[in-house]
Amino acid sequence: MKFKRNERIGAIVKILSDNPNKVFTLSYFTDKFNAAKSTISEDVLVVKNVFEKMNLGQVITIAGAAGGVKYIPKISKTDNIKFLESLCDKLNDNSRLLPGGFLYIIDLIYNPQIAAKIGKIFASYIDYKDADYVVTIETKGIPMALMTANAMNLPLVIIRKDSKVSEGSALSITYMSESSKRVQMLSLPRKALKENSKVILIDDFMRGGGTFKAMEDLMNEFNAKVIGKGVFISMAEPKEKQVSDYVSLVDFKMIGEEMQITPNSDFVIQNSEN
Amino acid sequence: MKFKRNERIGAIVKILSDNPNKVFTLSYFTDKFNAAKSTISEDVLVVKNVFEKMNLGQVITIAGAAGGVKYIPKISKTDNIKFLESLCDKLNDNSRLLPGGFLYIIDLIYNPQIAAKIGKIFASYIDYKDADYVVTIETKGIPMALMTANAMNLPLVIIRKDSKVSEGSALSITYMSESSKRVQMLSLPRKALKENSKVILIDDFMRGGGTFKAMEDLMNEFNAKVIGKGVFISMAEPKEKQVSDYVSLVDFKMIGEEMQITPNSDFVIQNSEN
Repeated sequence: MKFKRNERIGAIVKILSDNPNKVFTLSYFTDKFNAAKSTISEDVLVVKNVFEKMNLGQVITIAGAAGGVKYIPKISKTDNIKFLESLCDKLNDNSRLLPGGFLYIIDLIYNPQIAAKIGKIFASYIDYKDADYVVTIETKGIPMALMTANAMNLPLVIIRKDSKVSEGSALSITYMSESSKRVQMLSLPRKALKENSKVILIDDFMRGGGTFKAMEDLMNEFNAKVIGKGVFISMAEPKEKQVSDYVSLVDFKMIGEEMQITPNSDFVIQNSEN
Repeated sequence: MKFKRNERIGAIVKILSDNPNKVFTLSYFTDKFNAAKSTISEDVLVVKNVFEKMNLGQVITIAGAAGGVKYIPKISKTDNIKFLESLCDKLNDNSRLLPGGFLYIIDLIYNPQIAAKIGKIFASYIDYKDADYVVTIETKGIPMALMTANAMNLPLVIIRKDSKVSEGSALSITYMSESSKRVQMLSLPRKALKENSKVILIDDFMRGGGTFKAMEDLMNEFNAKVIGKGVFISMAEPKEKQVSDYVSLVDFKMIGEEMQITPNSDFVIQNSEN
């Protein structure tokens, strides 16, 4: 198949965009497009401009034997805040408030476009260069965690709340859930994580951080180290969280009967460990 | 921001690829790139070639007032079968066989790249032009269902197996699960589906089709109509399924102690309703 210059550039954008953080050698492209290395190098320069001008991250060239080209998605702070503001406009609707102080958000966070954007924002603020997995807990955080794993080019692991599942022998722990006020089980198949892995935790909602704490405890059972954490919405109360150093995108506060949901424009929270 | 021709083509590829099935007007591009309509029209012709030469689907132009350009992802049959063959190579490993006749597949189906490919294959064989939602049931099918919803540009709805969840008032039904051999509850918040919706059902695994049947029953409670169904793996036994007219990607057969997992090269199954 013969590709013209313009078409090659479009095709390279498509390949890099579909495979964030994956390294493609120049030979991959010279073979695919039957073109000289120098030609592909010129194409890649144009492709770099495309991503930079669109504020969608960087295309970088890695030198050496294992070298090549890869796309690192990273949305600009201005665009992130603009996106989160429009999302908060939708969230700030008292009809979303459910009995028990819960918030109805699944119409938004299950939306593939929104989940993809949240995933790219997490990938813009969490340092994942040494990470082996993105880990989440069922159910509501799965879409955004999958899209985060996609942006980071990492496999996704899902912690289950049910020990009766059919995934082979599993490690389980229990903890007292703040939101459901009952003992909650977390369970993960032994096969799901390699020993000594480094992981990023993603969840959709945080009150006191008990779920993150329990997830970390479960990770310890696998000798895995948590090197980053991201949550979509954090409640202002309780102020004291059981975790520190995490990325949070949206703050949720109750002022009397009124909800106040706003972007967390700092993104990174570094409170001291309690 | 000034874009050169080459860069515009890369940028249009990126925008269409990130937003499958979404219509973009020519004015959207003329504004974004500060270029004439005739210039953008020429760019779009090149972009069409990119997707066609890469066998990744079609970019179509819609005439009229609500017109514009959209990208319909559709992978070629040859590429689909090649992808499913390489996946079956990984699945055909007896160490994946778990007690109870279950198969360990989560390392593959939670992988974002694989889930994305499965989603695009479902979008290649299921007719979704009238659909309002993609509906799945927690947990293992969620990643592929999200990627299917992404390819189809539809919102995702996730049926829960737990009635104690915090998503407001819900409709629930129970059914006898073939795999877990216990009564299973399906539950969905009343707000999750609009009345008289048309939906596509996605699940990861099918034995007799009881789960699909129960999902259809729940959809009936919402006055929603199931207009398409897709499953990743179907067991050969039992032969009589409780559903008909579905897309299935992989066949799973036990011959004595040996597993036989193969691509379903017909993709669409049209058995008569039982």
